Amino acid sequence: MYKVKVYVTLRESVLDPQGTVVKNSLHTLNFNEVSDVRIGKYMELTIEKSDRNVEDVVREACEKILANTVIEDYRFEIEECVSQ
Amino acid sequence: MYKVKVYVTLRESVLDPQGTVVKNSLHTLNFNEVSDVRIGKYMELTIEKSDRNVEDVVREACEKILANTVIEDYRFEIEECVSQ
Repeated sequence: MYKVKVYVTLRESVLDPQGTVVKNSLHTLNFNEVSDVRIGKYMELTIEKSDRNVEDVVREACEKILANTVIEDYRFEIEECVSQ
Repeated sequence: MYKVKVYVTLRESVLDPQGTVVKNSLHTLNFNEVSDVRIGKYMELTIEKSDRNVEDVVREACEKILANTVIEDYRFEIEECVSQ
């Protein structure tokens, strides 16, 4: 069994209106130190062992459904777990 | 200047309908290895140096606005950057 952490972020060149709203809210609450906020997605997948390579499975899942690669970048970490 | 990465995840005991939808979609696309999906948020903050401790600033921001601590957990990593 594998635990996979997937991070999906907007590409640098893409505007992040959600991040701007959060930044403005932080300023309203006197967190004036915060000069930029970018919002992304974080996903934890549990993947069972199969005859397919887990890295290929995750990459394909990211390309097909988890990330919109036109505007988003993704990266992931795979951790093997001992089943109990 | 600090780059802070904040991860917000639903608590273990809280149902994640969005994750279930993504899991079902992955099964439809023949990713049957994926047995569980949990969706969280990932935020990148840029914080300028101030007289307040950056760790306190981030923790307070998480408690007040970035996470709903009733149903969500958060963790963060702080990285100091050399300004250019």
